[in-house]
Amino acid sequence: MTNFFDGISPVKFDPASDSDLAFRHYNPDEIVMGKRMEDQLRFAVAYWHSFAWEGGDPFGGRTFDRPWYPQDSMAMAKVKADAAFEMFDILGQPFFCFHDADVCPGGESFAEYKRNLDEIVEYFAGKMESSKTKLLWGTANMFTHRRFMSGAATNPDPDVFAWCAATVKECMDATMKLGGQNYVLWGGREGYETLLNTDLVKERNQAGRFLQMVVEYKKKIGFKGTILIEPKPQEPSKHQYDYDVNTVYSFIKEFDLEGEVAMNIEQGHAILAGHSFEHELAMAAAFGILGSIDMNKNDYQSGWDTDQFPTNVPEVALAYYEILKMGGFTTGGTNFDAKLRRQSLDAEDLIAGHVGAMDVCARGLKAAAAMLEDGGLEAARDARYAGWDSAANKDMLANGTLESISARVMAENINPEPRSGRQERLENYVNRFV
Amino acid sequence: MTNFFDGISPVKFDPASDSDLAFRHYNPDEIVMGKRMEDQLRFAVAYWHSFAWEGGDPFGGRTFDRPWYPQDSMAMAKVKADAAFEMFDILGQPFFCFHDADVCPGGESFAEYKRNLDEIVEYFAGKMESSKTKLLWGTANMFTHRRFMSGAATNPDPDVFAWCAATVKECMDATMKLGGQNYVLWGGREGYETLLNTDLVKERNQAGRFLQMVVEYKKKIGFKGTILIEPKPQEPSKHQYDYDVNTVYSFIKEFDLEGEVAMNIEQGHAILAGHSFEHELAMAAAFGILGSIDMNKNDYQSGWDTDQFPTNVPEVALAYYEILKMGGFTTGGTNFDAKLRRQSLDAEDLIAGHVGAMDVCARGLKAAAAMLEDGGLEAARDARYAGWDSAANKDMLANGTLESISARVMAENINPEPRSGRQERLENYVNRFV
Amino acid sequence: MTNFFDGISPVKFDPASDSDLAFRHYNPDEIVMGKRMEDQLRFAVAYWHSFAWEGGDPFGGRTFDRPWYPQDSMAMAKVKADAAFEMFDILGQPFFCFHDADVCPGGESFAEYKRNLDEIVEYFAGKMESSKTKLLWGTANMFTHRRFMSGAATNPDPDVFAWCAATVKECMDATMKLGGQNYVLWGGREGYETLLNTDLVKERNQAGRFLQMVVEYKKKIGFKGTILIEPKPQEPSKHQYDYDVNTVYSFIKEFDLEGEVAMNIEQGHAILAGHSFEHELAMAAAFGILGSIDMNKNDYQSGWDTDQFPTNVPEVALAYYEILKMGGFTTGGTNFDAKLRRQSLDAEDLIAGHVGAMDVCARGLKAAAAMLEDGGLEAARDARYAGWDSAANKDMLANGTLESISARVMAENINPEPRSGRQERLENYVNRFV
Amino acid sequence: MTNFFDGISPVKFDPASDSDLAFRHYNPDEIVMGKRMEDQLRFAVAYWHSFAWEGGDPFGGRTFDRPWYPQDSMAMAKVKADAAFEMFDILGQPFFCFHDADVCPGGESFAEYKRNLDEIVEYFAGKMESSKTKLLWGTANMFTHRRFMSGAATNPDPDVFAWCAATVKECMDATMKLGGQNYVLWGGREGYETLLNTDLVKERNQAGRFLQMVVEYKKKIGFKGTILIEPKPQEPSKHQYDYDVNTVYSFIKEFDLEGEVAMNIEQGHAILAGHSFEHELAMAAAFGILGSIDMNKNDYQSGWDTDQFPTNVPEVALAYYEILKMGGFTTGGTNFDAKLRRQSLDAEDLIAGHVGAMDVCARGLKAAAAMLEDGGLEAARDARYAGWDSAANKDMLANGTLESISARVMAENINPEPRSGRQERLENYVNRFV
Repeated sequence: MTNFFDGISPVKFDPASDSDLAFRHYNPDEIVMGKRMEDQLRFAVAYWHSFAWEGGDPFGGRTFDRPWYPQDSMAMAKVKADAAFEMFDILGQPFFCFHDADVCPGGESFAEYKRNLDEIVEYFAGKMESSKTKLLWGTANMFTHRRFMSGAATNPDPDVFAWCAATVKECMDATMKLGGQNYVLWGGREGYETLLNTDLVKERNQAGRFLQMVVEYKKKIGFKGTILIEPKPQEPSKHQYDYDVNTVYSFIKEFDLEGEVAMNIEQGHAILAGHSFEHELAMAAAFGILGSIDMNKNDYQSGWDTDQFPTNVPEVALAYYEILKMGGFTTGGTNFDAKLRRQSLDAEDLIAGHVGAMDVCARGLKAAAAMLEDGGLEAARDARYAGWDSAANKDMLANGTLESISARVMAENINPEPRSGRQERLENYVNRFV
Repeated sequence: MTNFFDGISPVKFDPASDSDLAFRHYNPDEIVMGKRMEDQLRFAVAYWHSFAWEGGDPFGGRTFDRPWYPQDSMAMAKVKADAAFEMFDILGQPFFCFHDADVCPGGESFAEYKRNLDEIVEYFAGKMESSKTKLLWGTANMFTHRRFMSGAATNPDPDVFAWCAATVKECMDATMKLGGQNYVLWGGREGYETLLNTDLVKERNQAGRFLQMVVEYKKKIGFKGTILIEPKPQEPSKHQYDYDVNTVYSFIKEFDLEGEVAMNIEQGHAILAGHSFEHELAMAAAFGILGSIDMNKNDYQSGWDTDQFPTNVPEVALAYYEILKMGGFTTGGTNFDAKLRRQSLDAEDLIAGHVGAMDVCARGLKAAAAMLEDGGLEAARDARYAGWDSAANKDMLANGTLESISARVMAENINPEPRSGRQERLENYVNRFV
Repeated sequence: MTNFFDGISPVKFDPASDSDLAFRHYNPDEIVMGKRMEDQLRFAVAYWHSFAWEGGDPFGGRTFDRPWYPQDSMAMAKVKADAAFEMFDILGQPFFCFHDADVCPGGESFAEYKRNLDEIVEYFAGKMESSKTKLLWGTANMFTHRRFMSGAATNPDPDVFAWCAATVKECMDATMKLGGQNYVLWGGREGYETLLNTDLVKERNQAGRFLQMVVEYKKKIGFKGTILIEPKPQEPSKHQYDYDVNTVYSFIKEFDLEGEVAMNIEQGHAILAGHSFEHELAMAAAFGILGSIDMNKNDYQSGWDTDQFPTNVPEVALAYYEILKMGGFTTGGTNFDAKLRRQSLDAEDLIAGHVGAMDVCARGLKAAAAMLEDGGLEAARDARYAGWDSAANKDMLANGTLESISARVMAENINPEPRSGRQERLENYVNRFV
Repeated sequence: MTNFFDGISPVKFDPASDSDLAFRHYNPDEIVMGKRMEDQLRFAVAYWHSFAWEGGDPFGGRTFDRPWYPQDSMAMAKVKADAAFEMFDILGQPFFCFHDADVCPGGESFAEYKRNLDEIVEYFAGKMESSKTKLLWGTANMFTHRRFMSGAATNPDPDVFAWCAATVKECMDATMKLGGQNYVLWGGREGYETLLNTDLVKERNQAGRFLQMVVEYKKKIGFKGTILIEPKPQEPSKHQYDYDVNTVYSFIKEFDLEGEVAMNIEQGHAILAGHSFEHELAMAAAFGILGSIDMNKNDYQSGWDTDQFPTNVPEVALAYYEILKMGGFTTGGTNFDAKLRRQSLDAEDLIAGHVGAMDVCARGLKAAAAMLEDGGLEAARDARYAGWDSAANKDMLANGTLESISARVMAENINPEPRSGRQERLENYVNRFV
């Protein structure tokens, strides 16, 4: 036991509490659309932000003090793991997620890396025997070390590609060993800084082939989880190949990966790509590839990934609306890819960040469920497109030609009159629920 | 003859001139990479900005006075056409582009629209007999009239879809009749204002089916030109389905249109999507779908499409580098989708805007050609990826598995050391040419 | 009586209603922090968006149909006024705001302009005798007509300056005659498109002198209302001189106008300047110049002024928190500088937009009041700065020198340890109220 | 002597060279507008980017390897200084700039900090005896260490304020001792992360009082250099108090500092504030407070400070135009606040980054000088405002009232007709020079 969380009790659902550290809205056992709230939301703690990140920003170093600093030994990696599982218990969190680099030192060689990772995975496995918290997904950090500065699988140096292949093999093995329900790939360095030194075609082909290898390996080892791609438009790279949902879908099509991979969509990454979170979710759902979400909040006015804990219920409600509409999560869940502000130094801040976020998500989920059950939005949408339900119009769409349709326009003197889109009334409708 | 351009003589290449209205760099007959400069650049005037737009902005009405105002009669449409062809002659422009709505009044019914369009096409055909200026592309304006407010082919109302099909048929017929070398589709209203009232799946399917009909009709009538899609992320719609090159490529794949359509890429639209112009060009070239460009300049600090005449030679050079690298234009060209600032009231401003832009493009083209001929960038790029040329690494990429590569990493103790990306040196190299 | 709002009854406070057109939260008579809600919020309808704007955008023309179109005659101006006052009654709105150009045609000469304005002001005065709705503020539209294209008071042409002086005199007279409680100046064209043709010093001096004339005239005629400046960073001008609150404050200082003018702050303009709305409010309150607000919502991802009806209660609550904290409005109020989306064609949409916005503001106001009354935020803030309350530290700030303080740091070996900023806990606190 | 720059010779002006490391445009002795180019441009190397920054970004650690790593001892600080002065010599740089934290370890206490700083200043003084390179400015880094996380002078903790006062005293002493020509204050943490925990009024008062102390101390010690404030809108803070030139000017007015301080304006910071660099320069020149510049390039599409070496001659030319127009630098100069891209690992990259940037500035300066000498822009500007030269219009501006001017508009039937702003023609004019 570390003493980092000393004095902090397990967080309970207690709407009447005046404590900072009680759930007012998140009640794991409450039924929402036929499932326990815990099973709908499937919350996960992100190991990196909560335990590995030290509070630095581009203009300043670490601000936090933690019993597991400095993070350069296996001994400290275990102290960190102890603290992490203590926090999972305090929050009653059903899941966590991690990168290899979060959980142990990388070592000086690949062999040392593998030893370190194997050892900590063993340690995690031990802790998980007595914990309710499971692994939502694992992933490989292929962006922090300087060897990845010019790309991971898309590196101009084939040795880096090789290193990455070996690394992902280890991380997939680790994920499978720990019962992970998904495996995530985010390509922070899979992109470029300047086109002047970049061969777009080569790099994208490397990325495509790499992803095929991942899928092949998944089948080889019998991993039952989902392979998830996480898009982001830029940062750290000036331009990233997995810009947004549509770009990834184009990639999936190009490299014959349809049906093999799905997506992990982050609010902040959607924002940075010029989209709303709900747009990216709806788009992925339309393609049948919406797998999991990274829930956070991005400052709309900061042009980088701010990874804040979500606070805005009306926005969160629209995200869960898309998720519930497609039937809810299967292997996916709600991972808090959110970090404390660097001035939030205390253990209590770390708990409070999660408690507030879980309540915000619970409110959003309940509002979304109420809207779906009420049916007002879906009814309005159906009415708006009802003209397409007629046999004549279905036929026009399926079998028409420009000529045949043109003839009909002339013959029937079609001259359409616009009808209200009723946006404000629909926004007011939503505001009844949030 | 209008008298709008009275006193303005044909613009000549005369580097020693001190006139505002001489070409200092654009010399149509100069050979650049084996072709006349005119045949490399293939400039086009955009009818809409130069002749139909009246100088309004969201906070103010028209500022221009033109002999062809008000633009509500066929008589004025012909005065406008006269002025346009006068300007084409003054500039010695090889091409122009137009929307249906730019060239004649839309009428009160589809039948009247068709009569008007047929009449002005006849008038254009007459003028083109004695003009060197050809049609680069035609297109349909399906965004200005209120009937399109909720979408064109993606409208919830099937009658609007029908109207659009009939309209595109007319515009393709007109384009073919006038010898147009391409036909362009830009979907300014093919998107949504709010997801609350939008069925993404239905709307994208409508768009896909519509585009298939266009391709079928092209074949039916034997149109030899290229069908070009023009992407833009937003504006006027909050979100547009043809966001950027990757998004359109995903669409092309989804609706089985590969090989049937290419792209018309606009500098300002690239910027609004968070990309550089050269990125979008390189991306489209990588997919084999780079067809034509809309050249302009977008204010990086205004969040809307400012459609300025290009002024920055270093930026323009990087764009033409991508175009020359893929072998230059075939049916495509350089359309100036650029408008005067609304305070630029005079005929001389309209000529000067084009003259300056043509000189900027000529400088950019020559710099790009010199870089390609020098070969410095390509040599640096080849050197950077040279590791992939070995048989072992080619085999790793083609046939490797995570396991086989992992074994090799362990066996060979691979531990890659990063190498400089040399960005500043490459930027300095470019600055020797621009 | 127009029949535009036929079938729409006065909107009532009725939380149990299932009507689209009932207030669920806005109860004018409910007491919030010692005043009736109506007197705290002081809502106003913006004449321009609701009655003069026709639904156009940069890519499309009008979409609305209204009984008072075309807006080119005094007869139609009166029909429009009739409809406006009908809507004020339906909403029970205490205030409205207008530009000269919204309420009557501008005429062909200044004399005709003055006649038109006088006539409609007379007509308004008549209607206001039997209406509860008062004038919150009047203003002059010096940005739509082409004569203002290069600036109003900052125009390079002194005749335009003269026209503007004469215009503002008329509009101030009209505002005073109608009992207006403030007079607003927003300088949409007081800025520049390009520095290349702009004399910054001359233009700012013209603006400063103009504002001095306005203040002198206010005193001359005994207008008791407040002169309000409304900042905006850009659009329509590429750069506007009244960028944000700090910029305007610098201007006020430079031209000796402190104590003479206050500010009207718009949510959307704050966003476009890179600030949050509450930042601009807090900044103006700090300078003692927070006068009134233009309430709306700006799409964070569209780089222009979207002027939507507010929908997000948590954001609105933070704005009213600043307003209540400074003691509430005096002459100012909450003007809805918000327009329907251009697809929202119906009279019912226009009412619904206001009803929803009023409810959102009411929720925000009540949440803000509850937070202030609870005192949690203020207590946390006081605690954070408590170190400054000691006599020694007060003295250090007031009378210290770098030398004396340095000596103390050395002598006392001062080595400050950071303390948590508790941001997440404060955000959670706010979420208890919204 | 370190051996870091082994094999790199002093860079010479040699336009015919084909070396990467020759000046093609920067000729220190060439006369531009009456001064040697070196004396016009007054280049400085920024110690922090070139010697202290290790290549990290928010998603990755150091990429560089330098002989002076790890930077945690005085011994390494001296190796670093040796390398720095070697580079100054290679470039023939007339100036450098530094923060305290760049040049030596900060120590565990204020006393240790002071000892370290004194020792390295002594070491610098020794090296400067035999170097042509002088100190352009010194400054204190009050943003990297965790003690500054909640602000420096604006910290809620008075002990941090005290630490800062003591620090700036040391840094001003060091700057004076080394003959620095300016002293700079940039307040990266003088702002806030969230208004929820911030007292704007208190914090701004602390900042104002602090700046007064700095000015008092300058006078006390007889420092003849200029005190320069460097604005930036955000990053690292969510909102910074020194947002832009206008904001700082408002601050100067508020705290009675006019005539005591000037500004150091950075291209990248201007961009982040929504302005062009030339706007900020022109604005500061208009207020008489343009002191010095931080030259770099910001990626317009990355929402953070990218600090790249400048590459775009047309943009740089417009900046130097404003500087030459106000008469050129006095104590200020051109500091390259620019860093290598993190993939640019080699010593040669570091030299090349500066060489390319110096050439870009030289081209910009020469183009700006040619434009000023030609006088075309100034003549066009004068013509545009010529109407204001008449006695009647001067009198209107100086002595008019709304009433008197209104009477004149009516009497003379003033009805101004707009005149072209000729933007494109002016842009073309500029393109003749760049």
